[in-house]
Amino acid sequence: MHTPTAAMLVIGDEILSGRTRDSNTNFLARALTDHGIRLTEARVVADEHDRIKQAVQALSAAYDHVFTSGGIGPTHDDITADAVADAMGAPIDIRDDARAILQAHYDARGQELNAARLRMARIPAGARLIDNPISAAPGFTIGNVHVMAGVPSIFEAMVASVMPTLTGGPPMLSQSLRVVRGEGDIAEALGRLAADHPEVSIGSYPFQRDGVHGSNIVVRSQDGPAVDAVMGALVRLFPATG
Amino acid sequence: MHTPTAAMLVIGDEILSGRTRDSNTNFLARALTDHGIRLTEARVVADEHDRIKQAVQALSAAYDHVFTSGGIGPTHDDITADAVADAMGAPIDIRDDARAILQAHYDARGQELNAARLRMARIPAGARLIDNPISAAPGFTIGNVHVMAGVPSIFEAMVASVMPTLTGGPPMLSQSLRVVRGEGDIAEALGRLAADHPEVSIGSYPFQRDGVHGSNIVVRSQDGPAVDAVMGALVRLFPATG
Repeated sequence: MHTPTAAMLVIGDEILSGRTRDSNTNFLARALTDHGIRLTEARVVADEHDRIKQAVQALSAAYDHVFTSGGIGPTHDDITADAVADAMGAPIDIRDDARAILQAHYDARGQELNAARLRMARIPAGARLIDNPISAAPGFTIGNVHVMAGVPSIFEAMVASVMPTLTGGPPMLSQSLRVVRGEGDIAEALGRLAADHPEVSIGSYPFQRDGVHGSNIVVRSQDGPAVDAVMGALVRLFPATG
Repeated sequence: MHTPTAAMLVIGDEILSGRTRDSNTNFLARALTDHGIRLTEARVVADEHDRIKQAVQALSAAYDHVFTSGGIGPTHDDITADAVADAMGAPIDIRDDARAILQAHYDARGQELNAARLRMARIPAGARLIDNPISAAPGFTIGNVHVMAGVPSIFEAMVASVMPTLTGGPPMLSQSLRVVRGEGDIAEALGRLAADHPEVSIGSYPFQRDGVHGSNIVVRSQDGPAVDAVMGALVRLFPATG
């Protein structure tokens, strides 16, 4: 059973300067996990043509899908569509179908579809539009690259409209056990369990909260009974009353 | 005036599965911006030796500094130190200075420095230790790569101890103006202003909140008077009472 792979590419100086926190990667990660697609890498790059182009080329060659967020608005710093078109070797211009969507949207509001807004109708040749139920300006899919808005509510709506079109593998299942013992105390037994059960992935995520040290142990696999079996072994190894 | 560049490499399956949100990138971004170092790229990769190695090699060749977060604890899935050593071509083994730090820490608590905890003393040859005031297990710097813990409180303490050792450029200064008009209405004038003032970077970040549409316009430069001059022009272009 092949599990498709994906990469996220966040485009935004505001993330790299620390002004804004990216929340789109986490939203996409959860949506992909539920859909049986493995998010394998995420990158953040600045709003610069060559950096976007190079990242799109590297990621679209390495993974089954690439999702981008940011840089498709009407202002001078919105350069994602042109950079992605360049990366994919496609010509780009204002496209009639995208223009019609924008025209209807602004007509309904009595606003002008001016030159700046028309930039949002620049779509690479051969791309398929992604619906934007919030502010009309569409995203697009070209090859295996899905280009979406950076505003979280719009990004999330676009993910919701793209996801059903993608073929997922069996969903990744996970269970977790909270163990209130230091990682150093449980690591040896946990390492043996992981070595004995290569059919699941076992991660240990330490926490320190209110003076309590412990670890959340997460067991993941596409094989539900295998997850259950290892969880049973974990509970016997680290009983709550131990 | 050269502005040093940096990359962040987050190592963690738990981020890519969506289970955990990464907060370390944002913390580092703000610390670097204040210190006059430009965070130019960020990546998240899975807990896999070759993926970590390849990312470290690519980023350490491309940027002045690389900061990693995650994967330096005592459990079987903590493989960052070995992967970074491999990437940098350095041998790695338990080092006496790191072992002594751990021994003192666990002795003071009446806990055993067992084999799992000793893994945290694996430090590449030639690396400089990074102090961990919270749980003792050190990070390290090898070449231009700073290897730090994933637990946010420890990551943040390690950043605080590394940052003063790095030479920063002039800090990036920024001011922002909140404009309650749609991006499409202001884009043309804003684009002209940006073209007329290449000495600053002007970003436009749309927001939609409580039914209000607008944009935060951010002006950034290392040249304070230049930022002030463009902010003055912005306020004249988009007066609050316009």
